[in-house]
Amino acid sequence: MTTVIKNGTVVTADLTYDADVLIENGVISEIGPNLKGDEELDATGCYVMPGGIDPHVHLEMPFMGTYSSDDFESGTRAGLAGGTTMVVDFCLPNQGEGLHDALKRWDNKSTRANCDYSFHMAVTWWGEQVFNDMKSVIEDRGITTFKHFLAYKGALMVNDDELFASFNRLAELGGIAMVHAENGDVVAEMTAKLLAEGNTGPEGHAYSRPSQVEGEATNRAIMIADMAGVPLYVVHTSCEEAHEAIRRARMQGKRVWGEPLIQHLTLDESEYFNKDWDHAARRVMSPPFRNKQHQDSLWAGLMSGSLSVVATDHCAFTTEQKRTGIGDFSKIPNGTGGLEDRLPMLWTHGVETGRLTPNEFVAVTSTNIAKILNCYPKKGSVLVGADADLVVWDPKKEKTIQASTQQSAIDYNVFEGHHVKGLPRFTLTRGQVAVHDGEIRTQEGHGKFVAREPNGTVNKALSTWKDLTAPRPVERTGIPATGV
Amino acid sequence: MTTVIKNGTVVTADLTYDADVLIENGVISEIGPNLKGDEELDATGCYVMPGGIDPHVHLEMPFMGTYSSDDFESGTRAGLAGGTTMVVDFCLPNQGEGLHDALKRWDNKSTRANCDYSFHMAVTWWGEQVFNDMKSVIEDRGITTFKHFLAYKGALMVNDDELFASFNRLAELGGIAMVHAENGDVVAEMTAKLLAEGNTGPEGHAYSRPSQVEGEATNRAIMIADMAGVPLYVVHTSCEEAHEAIRRARMQGKRVWGEPLIQHLTLDESEYFNKDWDHAARRVMSPPFRNKQHQDSLWAGLMSGSLSVVATDHCAFTTEQKRTGIGDFSKIPNGTGGLEDRLPMLWTHGVETGRLTPNEFVAVTSTNIAKILNCYPKKGSVLVGADADLVVWDPKKEKTIQASTQQSAIDYNVFEGHHVKGLPRFTLTRGQVAVHDGEIRTQEGHGKFVAREPNGTVNKALSTWKDLTAPRPVERTGIPATGV
Amino acid sequence: MTTVIKNGTVVTADLTYDADVLIENGVISEIGPNLKGDEELDATGCYVMPGGIDPHVHLEMPFMGTYSSDDFESGTRAGLAGGTTMVVDFCLPNQGEGLHDALKRWDNKSTRANCDYSFHMAVTWWGEQVFNDMKSVIEDRGITTFKHFLAYKGALMVNDDELFASFNRLAELGGIAMVHAENGDVVAEMTAKLLAEGNTGPEGHAYSRPSQVEGEATNRAIMIADMAGVPLYVVHTSCEEAHEAIRRARMQGKRVWGEPLIQHLTLDESEYFNKDWDHAARRVMSPPFRNKQHQDSLWAGLMSGSLSVVATDHCAFTTEQKRTGIGDFSKIPNGTGGLEDRLPMLWTHGVETGRLTPNEFVAVTSTNIAKILNCYPKKGSVLVGADADLVVWDPKKEKTIQASTQQSAIDYNVFEGHHVKGLPRFTLTRGQVAVHDGEIRTQEGHGKFVAREPNGTVNKALSTWKDLTAPRPVERTGIPATGV
Amino acid sequence: MTTVIKNGTVVTADLTYDADVLIENGVISEIGPNLKGDEELDATGCYVMPGGIDPHVHLEMPFMGTYSSDDFESGTRAGLAGGTTMVVDFCLPNQGEGLHDALKRWDNKSTRANCDYSFHMAVTWWGEQVFNDMKSVIEDRGITTFKHFLAYKGALMVNDDELFASFNRLAELGGIAMVHAENGDVVAEMTAKLLAEGNTGPEGHAYSRPSQVEGEATNRAIMIADMAGVPLYVVHTSCEEAHEAIRRARMQGKRVWGEPLIQHLTLDESEYFNKDWDHAARRVMSPPFRNKQHQDSLWAGLMSGSLSVVATDHCAFTTEQKRTGIGDFSKIPNGTGGLEDRLPMLWTHGVETGRLTPNEFVAVTSTNIAKILNCYPKKGSVLVGADADLVVWDPKKEKTIQASTQQSAIDYNVFEGHHVKGLPRFTLTRGQVAVHDGEIRTQEGHGKFVAREPNGTVNKALSTWKDLTAPRPVERTGIPATGV
Ligand SMILES: [Zn+2]
Ligand SMILES: [Zn+2]
Ligand SMILES: [Zn+2]
Ligand SMILES: [Zn+2]
Ligand SMILES: [Zn+2]
Ligand SMILES: [Zn+2]
Ligand SMILES: [Zn+2]
Ligand SMILES: [Zn+2]
Repeated sequence: MTTVIKNGTVVTADLTYDADVLIENGVISEIGPNLKGDEELDATGCYVMPGGIDPHVHLEMPFMGTYSSDDFESGTRAGLAGGTTMVVDFCLPNQGEGLHDALKRWDNKSTRANCDYSFHMAVTWWGEQVFNDMKSVIEDRGITTFKHFLAYKGALMVNDDELFASFNRLAELGGIAMVHAENGDVVAEMTAKLLAEGNTGPEGHAYSRPSQVEGEATNRAIMIADMAGVPLYVVHTSCEEAHEAIRRARMQGKRVWGEPLIQHLTLDESEYFNKDWDHAARRVMSPPFRNKQHQDSLWAGLMSGSLSVVATDHCAFTTEQKRTGIGDFSKIPNGTGGLEDRLPMLWTHGVETGRLTPNEFVAVTSTNIAKILNCYPKKGSVLVGADADLVVWDPKKEKTIQASTQQSAIDYNVFEGHHVKGLPRFTLTRGQVAVHDGEIRTQEGHGKFVAREPNGTVNKALSTWKDLTAPRPVERTGIPATGV
Repeated sequence: MTTVIKNGTVVTADLTYDADVLIENGVISEIGPNLKGDEELDATGCYVMPGGIDPHVHLEMPFMGTYSSDDFESGTRAGLAGGTTMVVDFCLPNQGEGLHDALKRWDNKSTRANCDYSFHMAVTWWGEQVFNDMKSVIEDRGITTFKHFLAYKGALMVNDDELFASFNRLAELGGIAMVHAENGDVVAEMTAKLLAEGNTGPEGHAYSRPSQVEGEATNRAIMIADMAGVPLYVVHTSCEEAHEAIRRARMQGKRVWGEPLIQHLTLDESEYFNKDWDHAARRVMSPPFRNKQHQDSLWAGLMSGSLSVVATDHCAFTTEQKRTGIGDFSKIPNGTGGLEDRLPMLWTHGVETGRLTPNEFVAVTSTNIAKILNCYPKKGSVLVGADADLVVWDPKKEKTIQASTQQSAIDYNVFEGHHVKGLPRFTLTRGQVAVHDGEIRTQEGHGKFVAREPNGTVNKALSTWKDLTAPRPVERTGIPATGV
Repeated sequence: MTTVIKNGTVVTADLTYDADVLIENGVISEIGPNLKGDEELDATGCYVMPGGIDPHVHLEMPFMGTYSSDDFESGTRAGLAGGTTMVVDFCLPNQGEGLHDALKRWDNKSTRANCDYSFHMAVTWWGEQVFNDMKSVIEDRGITTFKHFLAYKGALMVNDDELFASFNRLAELGGIAMVHAENGDVVAEMTAKLLAEGNTGPEGHAYSRPSQVEGEATNRAIMIADMAGVPLYVVHTSCEEAHEAIRRARMQGKRVWGEPLIQHLTLDESEYFNKDWDHAARRVMSPPFRNKQHQDSLWAGLMSGSLSVVATDHCAFTTEQKRTGIGDFSKIPNGTGGLEDRLPMLWTHGVETGRLTPNEFVAVTSTNIAKILNCYPKKGSVLVGADADLVVWDPKKEKTIQASTQQSAIDYNVFEGHHVKGLPRFTLTRGQVAVHDGEIRTQEGHGKFVAREPNGTVNKALSTWKDLTAPRPVERTGIPATGV
Repeated sequence: MTTVIKNGTVVTADLTYDADVLIENGVISEIGPNLKGDEELDATGCYVMPGGIDPHVHLEMPFMGTYSSDDFESGTRAGLAGGTTMVVDFCLPNQGEGLHDALKRWDNKSTRANCDYSFHMAVTWWGEQVFNDMKSVIEDRGITTFKHFLAYKGALMVNDDELFASFNRLAELGGIAMVHAENGDVVAEMTAKLLAEGNTGPEGHAYSRPSQVEGEATNRAIMIADMAGVPLYVVHTSCEEAHEAIRRARMQGKRVWGEPLIQHLTLDESEYFNKDWDHAARRVMSPPFRNKQHQDSLWAGLMSGSLSVVATDHCAFTTEQKRTGIGDFSKIPNGTGGLEDRLPMLWTHGVETGRLTPNEFVAVTSTNIAKILNCYPKKGSVLVGADADLVVWDPKKEKTIQASTQQSAIDYNVFEGHHVKGLPRFTLTRGQVAVHDGEIRTQEGHGKFVAREPNGTVNKALSTWKDLTAPRPVERTGIPATGV
């Protein structure tokens, strides 16, 4: 069976043109005028774009004996409902656990996915097994991106020497380093201090990790990546300080990317000052929301290219789960939703306002990350031969975001009440029409794992440059030679 | 007759893949494996890339009763020899001359072009006719990019109020503003002072226009473009100060592009201190060459995306013409060659060193400018339907640059003696094989004018944002109302 | 008769210590414990500080056939009431008027001053007479600081070539360049545009000169000063963009100072959105008030030393005068008061909050400018031999600012309703107790002109450096020498 | 007995004037014209300045069972010979050693000092005893400045949580935090890697700690100090990256000072590429010398005030000691001399070139650090009542620096062969003429310890601001309140 998208305007990261798109066996087989197919999807007045890729989600993430509420089924369903056709989750090994053992757990959970997905591997401890497993994880499993936590002291956090060792290993293997950049030592001390002073509410979470803490860690990770000669991807860049560090690095020719979240682009710290504890606690995530000035910085980063990708860090906890932290903000599970709303919120606040062109919208929601992850043009493109992961975007369609009608498993939505303009008419995952004009037709288990090759072009270029400029010994004879 | 490029690797701004490329009637008709054609070009071991676009050339430019030595024939021949398949020249109206009258002169000269070309229009004076002509030049002639000189006082220079008026007009018409950014008042005074002090040699040219003079003018043009709400393209960005101004603007979300020249990326100010007057004078151009620190800044700009396009400002004067300035550097005609050497020099110093990926090379030599000029994907792409302006690039081919074997009409080459690795095996201009494995087969007059549409996506986005944030009057009643 | 200040704590720009201060003949004759004098002033619990110096006032300034309302008598009386003991006014020659002729007018007005004063000279036009007069104004009259307006097109504004010529002249004569930095061309165009669009209210004044217009002009003036080799003083630095330009210059070792006003440090743009036309119009000055982000930048500049001096630009117009601009903001006379409130407002918002130390308070209100103006330690110090221009500052004294009780001649106060903590108990001008515990005892005509020497230490150092690094011709023989 | 300095020009951080200076009992008793004393020192043609204060020396520093070669006798003798009249050494506790026990060792060594001195305390480990001792060290011993090493992993280095704990303690006690800022983890790994690759020569030392490593650590220390609310003093700021971090912090109003060394201001990395192993090894110090671009940054920092103090980090090792590191650069003892040459080198390269005024010279060599250390005006001033620590500076006196004639105990000089103009005619330490026109008359044991008070004005201001802006809990009732 073939499907054809008719009468739309194809919008990619660098092109805008009218064409029909024909799909066979989940792959785009033809793009052009007057195409025919078994099933016709009418895209009149719509943009046919690469489906969104969310490179930062945590589905069914283990947490204190329970799990984050959206699993691969409900999470990918929410994503598809909002035009996202691929997600990348983080495989989190336990302390001392081998990388492949952890992957087995992730493989099990992900079988229910409604759309394609990939994994980043997290380096949560350091040792010979991790060192060795990294090679096979990259080469055998096609997982080339490795995340490191500079925060969550006593749990996920790694120290600078471990970070440097891991980054060096990645440079050698052609992988890409990722960091959650907050200074874990300082956050831990601040948390203790605030709690001791009676700052126990959700706003204490924000106080415990101000923007300078993120800026510092970002700056540190950049230096270490530069010394190791590995490209660096900074997840959830939320503030000017971190963005400044990234800009400064890029301005020196370093290979660093920053990823703002849709939440940080559109919500601010005043959420934590809400008199309703639940309201505030539901917005608790790390990094916390910032003020308007930081938001402006993030938007400008997307416009100028100093920031590359918009993600969600989707990690949904119910109100019940959030209430674990009553009386102690440090016990509030960190995470918010966003998978379903990322594209409509970004379109509304980005494209409708003129901050982003439609092409830039595609770039930051899909194409840029596909290139960074080295799965472009299979993903992130509208090209013959590419996977038919597509969203037919109706720029006139509007709605007010409400938890009551969302796909996500949680009982609230951090964007509750926000009005959006620009929504999917259809979402296709490898040709399967998962969203059909408001109707959800996802197929549990349809999603497949996306393996990726190491040693992308940026890795190659960086290695060449680092070799060329490597320190060379001075040649001396008869050391030491002479006197003063 | 069809032509097929066989066994190559297609390299575009965002893709690298093995495929043959079939050409019919000057247009790419198919890309894929095992294609056949009447003429076969063997691209084994080569990259098939969009031909270079040089957005900054001055061919047969009127100068003190004579002309710059490369005309549209020799200039485009030199370009094709080096893999460049499109050039953009600047139409320079005389004081008081209408824009269309000036265009007639440029139309006449350009009939001899061996490859496609377009024009930028220069705003060299201001008045009602210019204001009116701008509309028809954009809408009827497809010339949407307008250059303004902040230097060359008493000749081409416009003042800030004229600049602002012209930028406002461009914002209204959906055009793009360009500037030659050097503070003409200061340059004029410095020139007089230096000559008076006996600094008459070619190095005086460099002394008269240090980097801060360029930085200032760049910063000023950016502010005025921002106030007018028009995208800005800064030609020949040569120094950190100008680049800093551009970075700062972009970091605030402003729509500004910078264009370093291949000369500034690879040659430095020491050329002017050469004891041989001819050597120094041949390198006289504006802005002058800078030091290593500025070069590093420009390279990092290309790597990070804060600079967008590599051009040449090709404006070739013979040694004879240069000698007009013996005893008075201000009489040395400004300009150097570069059309033939831009791609090989950039590949050698950029891709071979690992500073740029091959895809980034294509972006900065061709694709980015095609998008900015709004002639993408007709130009700057390898896509079915696009013009077959292609270069088959042999990364193993080497040579030492020598004036004695160059296509350009001048008697020297500023890159004389530089060794390059990476050269065209074939260059095709709309399918015509103009360079065939070292042999030049250009066809005079083959080149056609490329008209371009105004109101590209960046213009539209910027206008939307400017409307949204425009100042609004405060509503008051019974003015003035009350006392202290 | 001698006067002694007893039991106070002397606070200068770099010292804090307990001591009595003895005054004879208007000069400090002794500092130490247990001093005796004919008149005793009890400074128990107070700080004895150098009186404030306001380097930026316009008293009885000619304006459209009338004058700004505070003259040298009421203006200096207001200053003394607030702890300021010296003011510097700007002598503004008419177009074509010689500098000495203009000075005569200023000499006449200033005879009524209650405290000492000096003049800056403005360069409002350019010509041989100005060039010549500059020398005698500096050498014979002791006026070494020359202001240039980059705004007020068609009136006070000078162009870049005039600016450069004047700066060069100042470098030669050992003077200091000052600029009012706003791009006058852009302001003029913006004003016309806004009025045409119906933006006629006082907020239009702010819209017509946004911060980037000031940043641009500051940046331009800095470059031109650097080329001329003259130290530069930027008056009324009101925004991050201008401050950034100053910081960037200083970070390159350039000799540039910035002067924020107390108004910009404490009031913001929301004043212009007041529904009461009078309220908004009374705050109209150039540059206009900015937002909180700009304020933070200015405060940080004072803390770090990138900004040097806090002034007022005191130029008082009555509500009646302001109403000239009903229906056309461009006709609202530019200027606000501040002389009486500068020190209390800065102490309250600076020292009381911990942003400034008491010593830094003295530095930015008095000592720094005395050094820049080259009248230190006669002014700006508490040293034996210095003029007894002193304020006995009571950090516990509080009041709410009200126009109804102020010294200034105008009928309102832009700080109306602001509560201040920290006020003068006594103010002495050359030993004369002008303010005595709330009672005003000023003596009209007591004030004397303060002449100043050119060629201060910064001028000398800068000239040395510029000579050392001046461009030198390359020595060549037999020009031109050889071929390619 | 009284001593009078006749016919000189007093030059302080803010004043320049002709006066004689009379000294009684080691203290300045009078400043003025025509003074008489028992002993007369002729200062005709000279500047009478506050003696230099070197806040960063290591005399008789324990090192691998031996000591750095200059002890308190030879070190202070060298200092006096070059115009330095006070030094501050670092007390370095062993692991687990109490602060007072360590101080005893330093007290013993310092009895031989020829001039006054003070100590900084180093926090080389963390625990309850250190926490407790800090209070008594500050309050009982007058040592208020505490240094922390971010480098020297496994030895002196402290981790971020220890750093934060110590900084918090200092904030509480009114002390000042100091850091040696290099990332010790990265340096350790780089060192191992370089040695493994055969980079064993002294240049390997420089390769192992590039400027980004210093920039990172500086940035981190600044963030942690800001979170703790303590002023921060960064020792031996050697590069643009560190300076940039300091500038950025200051530009945000943070209280941070940077200390470039005279070596980094005048020597560059090419020293390490010398073919003579001894030559290179003698220059091994941390941070290593940098390139010209970094030097320019440091000079500009002194000119603009973003850097505050010029020191030496004097830590002299003989060639014999240096040779411990043949075959393994990591075994070369870190340290160079400089005490005798700091002032002449800075005058020559700073004042003679016009980069610094004579007043700025005094500020950065003496007055600024006296203020930071809170021993001003006892030290660092020329005021009645201040210690007569004075240098009579002859700006015409010249010499070529040679190890053969130096006071320092080592057998070479890193400035060997440098010509200096500007040298002491006399140096007085508390009135004792230690240098008399080329003759050394130091008195072993003359030097006394300088105790200092905590809670200087900057500490007070910073605490006030931090209290004012401390996080406050949101008041909520009936938590959690409502639903979505
Ligand atoms: Zn995270
Ligand atoms: Zn996450
Ligand atoms: Zn040009
Ligand atoms: Zn040009
Ligand atoms: Zn002004
Ligand atoms: Zn003014
Ligand atoms: Zn150190
Ligand atoms: Zn040290």
